[in-house]
Amino acid sequence: QSTVQIYGTIDEFAGRLTTETATTRSSSTVLNNGGMTTSFLGFRGTEDLGGGLRAVFALETFIRADTGAIGRNDADPFWGRLSIVGLEGGWGKLTLGRHVTPYSLATTLNTPFVGSTTLSPVFAHVYNLNLQGGTRFDNGVQYSLPRLGGFAADFLYSMGRENATPSVDRKRDRAFEAVGSYTTGPAKLTAGYHYINLNNAGDDHDQNAWMVAGTYDFGVIKVNAQHHRVREQSTTIATNARRRTTEAGVTIPVGAGSILATYVRSSMRDASPATPDGRRSFSIGYDYNLSKRTDIYTAYYRDRLVNPMTQQTILAAGVRHRF
Amino acid sequence: QSTVQIYGTIDEFAGRLTTETATTRSSSTVLNNGGMTTSFLGFRGTEDLGGGLRAVFALETFIRADTGAIGRNDADPFWGRLSIVGLEGGWGKLTLGRHVTPYSLATTLNTPFVGSTTLSPVFAHVYNLNLQGGTRFDNGVQYSLPRLGGFAADFLYSMGRENATPSVDRKRDRAFEAVGSYTTGPAKLTAGYHYINLNNAGDDHDQNAWMVAGTYDFGVIKVNAQHHRVREQSTTIATNARRRTTEAGVTIPVGAGSILATYVRSSMRDASPATPDGRRSFSIGYDYNLSKRTDIYTAYYRDRLVNPMTQQTILAAGVRHRF
Amino acid sequence: QSTVQIYGTIDEFAGRLTTETATTRSSSTVLNNGGMTTSFLGFRGTEDLGGGLRAVFALETFIRADTGAIGRNDADPFWGRLSIVGLEGGWGKLTLGRHVTPYSLATTLNTPFVGSTTLSPVFAHVYNLNLQGGTRFDNGVQYSLPRLGGFAADFLYSMGRENATPSVDRKRDRAFEAVGSYTTGPAKLTAGYHYINLNNAGDDHDQNAWMVAGTYDFGVIKVNAQHHRVREQSTTIATNARRRTTEAGVTIPVGAGSILATYVRSSMRDASPATPDGRRSFSIGYDYNLSKRTDIYTAYYRDRLVNPMTQQTILAAGVRHRF
Repeated sequence: QSTVQIYGTIDEFAGRLTTETATTRSSSTVLNNGGMTTSFLGFRGTEDLGGGLRAVFALETFIRADTGAIGRNDADPFWGRLSIVGLEGGWGKLTLGRHVTPYSLATTLNTPFVGSTTLSPVFAHVYNLNLQGGTRFDNGVQYSLPRLGGFAADFLYSMGRENATPSVDRKRDRAFEAVGSYTTGPAKLTAGYHYINLNNAGDDHDQNAWMVAGTYDFGVIKVNAQHHRVREQSTTIATNARRRTTEAGVTIPVGAGSILATYVRSSMRDASPATPDGRRSFSIGYDYNLSKRTDIYTAYYRDRLVNPMTQQTILAAGVRHRF
Repeated sequence: QSTVQIYGTIDEFAGRLTTETATTRSSSTVLNNGGMTTSFLGFRGTEDLGGGLRAVFALETFIRADTGAIGRNDADPFWGRLSIVGLEGGWGKLTLGRHVTPYSLATTLNTPFVGSTTLSPVFAHVYNLNLQGGTRFDNGVQYSLPRLGGFAADFLYSMGRENATPSVDRKRDRAFEAVGSYTTGPAKLTAGYHYINLNNAGDDHDQNAWMVAGTYDFGVIKVNAQHHRVREQSTTIATNARRRTTEAGVTIPVGAGSILATYVRSSMRDASPATPDGRRSFSIGYDYNLSKRTDIYTAYYRDRLVNPMTQQTILAAGVRHRF
Repeated sequence: QSTVQIYGTIDEFAGRLTTETATTRSSSTVLNNGGMTTSFLGFRGTEDLGGGLRAVFALETFIRADTGAIGRNDADPFWGRLSIVGLEGGWGKLTLGRHVTPYSLATTLNTPFVGSTTLSPVFAHVYNLNLQGGTRFDNGVQYSLPRLGGFAADFLYSMGRENATPSVDRKRDRAFEAVGSYTTGPAKLTAGYHYINLNNAGDDHDQNAWMVAGTYDFGVIKVNAQHHRVREQSTTIATNARRRTTEAGVTIPVGAGSILATYVRSSMRDASPATPDGRRSFSIGYDYNLSKRTDIYTAYYRDRLVNPMTQQTILAAGVRHRF
């Protein structure tokens, strides 16, 4: 008989979006997807092979629930959220396929708006126009250590553009990430590293990133912080860039929900005077649990790029259902 | 554990299609999708939140089962049939996402070929080149009244092209529909309203439609009728149009199945002498139930546009399986 | 309640691909999909209608698990593996929709690398640039005889490009296949026929193919052989071609797995001196079963086209999980 589990999340919000520059201002009322979690549908299974060995697989497809489209955007493949098969045992877990990157998980799990890519400023700071390769790697091999006390670690390698022509471009998109975390009582510490080869016709273009993050749960309040340093370089000086991002946030349980608040700032240094030099963003919200699987939320998010200034704000009220 | 229900319908028919104009005639033998119901696959679930409150979601994808393609046509998104999440209680039901329009449901439920978009002439009269916005609205909020006696009502609002540039085009596709019905014993009365903003660069283009429909089940025969009036206008006179559609049909139980017969006629008035002025169509068929979930059917459908004349006929024999 | 079964296979391998011509050589390390079975996800169901009659349906989508894309390639529709509905009884089985062709099943089941399209040379010889219409027919009607002793037979007819304009092109892709097999104890014999109309603007282009195949299981070794003859012709002499393919292979149980080895050679005769005249290929591998549903495998595959020479080799190690 079938042992396949179906699961997923549908999350939608009504909201008011405003975009401003120094001279213009434009607003619209929207019904949008994924305020707290980008909607998705998944299929997964586990088979016990005996001797502590298990076979595992998972397939997950993003959903733009407001319009019925698949993917976070039109560039995503159907199984763009996850597409893996592998083996798991006392020695750890080895999977092949398209993986979520450990670095992106470490970023979005160490913030009050856990998993959000819409209302969580740290995601925009680290991933929008910043960390190359995105949050998913194709053609990947991931190894995860077995849980040892409070210690966990994931290593992901991507083969990149395997069969590209000319063959020098096969290096492009080869990428590696490693993330380790240590949890003890109310405290959790995370450190991560990201590398991606962006080689284009032999220009030695690549990008490195490092991050540290910590959370501490005092009970009446949970605090979190994270810091990222990203360096991109090539023999073509124009693409050299350094970016730093720092977040500090709190999660305060109130009633059946939590108040969520966070502030993120980044500095961006590159050779182009036209691109922004800094980013200052915050988000504050209340997430109310109707059950363990269903919650309603409201949030106000402001994301400001500095010099030149562009600002986007979102006022949102939504519902998220996990199944 | 998972509470997700998988459901759907696969419907295919072998048939003979003939297209005629005053001077030409062309036929082909086909294996086509969805004679009675456009094939689809769905996933849905309900969570009891306590206090009479429930969370609901549904995802449905159309299938062209003859070729394995998704969608009714290439323009459909993957979850093009339905993509919603919401809450339901004693106060009614509120859902967000891509909805089937109440007006299209009222049209296709009040005809002998229930739900058919291929062999049911009223669907072609009301939706093909007529009612704008189609049978699905993106970016929608739907509210349904709780059932009160025999009374039911649905209200659907769509945000339209939310972020269009220039912002004047954000009005485009904003749409609203309201449909109420009253059922008492063998009789059911339905009334509906449709509005869509078709604004293009400030031309105040929009469309209104009204409908009434009724069915009465005498036991040995069930009769139905519906009437639609559609008005489209803009400051550009060329798009002004009025269309009226009237259907009368019967469903006659015979053995384990039913004879289905219906006649539909429309008048179309617009500024263009090149477009047809009228449409006269009928369909007659027999639908035989092998079980509650599986039926086989045969039908003859003739759809004729008048002045200039174009006529399509379909002779079909098919099988439909619900799961 | 739902009676839908979810099933499928995820198969991925890490490998080294090398492509050579007389003057060039290029290698790459890859993480690829489907060494033994092209990954897929399926939904199917059966309804007992009484009197020995059953309704059946199946929907299957190919998965490129290494990147999360759907389809074997970008040309495949979503339900490209299978999309059928039909009835089954004592008289046999009749299904409508997109079918896997009986000829391709007969080809890939009578080889040691059962079902493989990546590491099995006979698939490349028969289908790559050879048998037209591929392994799936749209707009098809399939009839299968009821099992009579060891005898089985499948007949598939495709309507082709049903509504093509001009109507002379509606013949294009009309296709028919018939495959019969007889199993008795350790022996199985299979014979198949393939026809496809490739008409283009009335050039009477079509293709015929015949095959015979046999397997015999001696217990300590299973041997198999198959032979194909393909003839393509039109009133335009340039497309006339004759191709012959012969395979001989063995499957040797060793421990919890099997050694698989096969050799395939083809001769290709056509009017073009630029296209290869022959093909010589082999594959050798070991497939180890971790359970009935999960196996790991390694294989070395060499596919050589002759005059002019082009050669591809794959060294692969992978995991396959069925669910």
